[in-house]
Amino acid sequence: MSSRTSDRTAAGSVGSIHARTQDDARRSGTTVWLTGLPSAGKTTIAYALAERLRGEGHRVEVLDGDEIREFLSAGLGFTREDRHLNVQRIGFVAELLASNGVKALVPVIAPYADSREAVAKRHAAAGTAYLEVHVATPVEVCSERDVKGLYAKQAAGEISGLTGVDDPYEAPDSPDLRIESHTQTVDESASALYALLNERGLV
Amino acid sequence: MSSRTSDRTAAGSVGSIHARTQDDARRSGTTVWLTGLPSAGKTTIAYALAERLRGEGHRVEVLDGDEIREFLSAGLGFTREDRHLNVQRIGFVAELLASNGVKALVPVIAPYADSREAVAKRHAAAGTAYLEVHVATPVEVCSERDVKGLYAKQAAGEISGLTGVDDPYEAPDSPDLRIESHTQTVDESASALYALLNERGLV
Repeated sequence: MSSRTSDRTAAGSVGSIHARTQDDARRSGTTVWLTGLPSAGKTTIAYALAERLRGEGHRVEVLDGDEIREFLSAGLGFTREDRHLNVQRIGFVAELLASNGVKALVPVIAPYADSREAVAKRHAAAGTAYLEVHVATPVEVCSERDVKGLYAKQAAGEISGLTGVDDPYEAPDSPDLRIESHTQTVDESASALYALLNERGLV
Repeated sequence: MSSRTSDRTAAGSVGSIHARTQDDARRSGTTVWLTGLPSAGKTTIAYALAERLRGEGHRVEVLDGDEIREFLSAGLGFTREDRHLNVQRIGFVAELLASNGVKALVPVIAPYADSREAVAKRHAAAGTAYLEVHVATPVEVCSERDVKGLYAKQAAGEISGLTGVDDPYEAPDSPDLRIESHTQTVDESASALYALLNERGLV
């Protein structure tokens, strides 16, 4: 949208260069998309990172998959096309937030590479930071965790179209970060993500 | 969303109380919903206000009706139910932005009082500022302006369901501001809106 050129250079603070740099980082928005299978740990890691970032004074928004789907995509189903539309809508909102200085954390499956690519391109076109993080928990671990009972329902034949089981999941080829959540604690995963943000000058 | 408690009190600046107050205002998000008939001048006034606010270092987003409908509500039509859903989605996004310190300006018809009320309630529940502005240009003036040619098309029988002509428009009973755009310049209308924001401590 043509209206999106928010004024990031507005100087609202005085003080040392160090203070200004910290303040710039606090105003640096970015989208962090956590893609992965159901029960991979995406949401848990996102909230752990959010807590740390908020503690440091950053503006943070977690665009939780289930909640935001209810608001933005009521009426959409889980066909390839509907999943794509849902991801584009969430990507649109994340970019709006990120371009306004918010850290938008998006723990949303986003199973298709081309859907994720479209979101990344929208950010690039707007000059907004975007990081793709693959929460690469193996399906065996996810189905054992089964936070929402989806794997059990699929096994029992009550549902179908479960990503990674009987619906496609296209793992990212070259994410900005791959998190092996099953080999480390939530805090360690969140810290790896924080380190990535730090490396990119976003915190 | 439970994640929405962004840290508005984070002090990113040092300096005089005056500077801090200005900075606080720059970080005070709000939604300003400009409701009114097609061609009432909603979008024009929103962009005029946006320019002034950006010039003062505020973060501003104009959620333009046509553009955002394309992104968030592809597939929705113009029935009462679909118009309601569209308004709720835009309200959801506006609140996300406003709760993160952005001035979200929303020039969107929103013809139904209960739809607008639901958006206002969502903001109130989240403790996010919300202002309803009625751009009260009479239908005779709007149909003469006819920026998008909709009134002409309706008159020619090419379209139906035009708000204010053959589809309902429920004017707000007690908006925070009523703008008689046909009796003043765009700048005067934008200034009246700015004065309202100032009165509420939002600029």
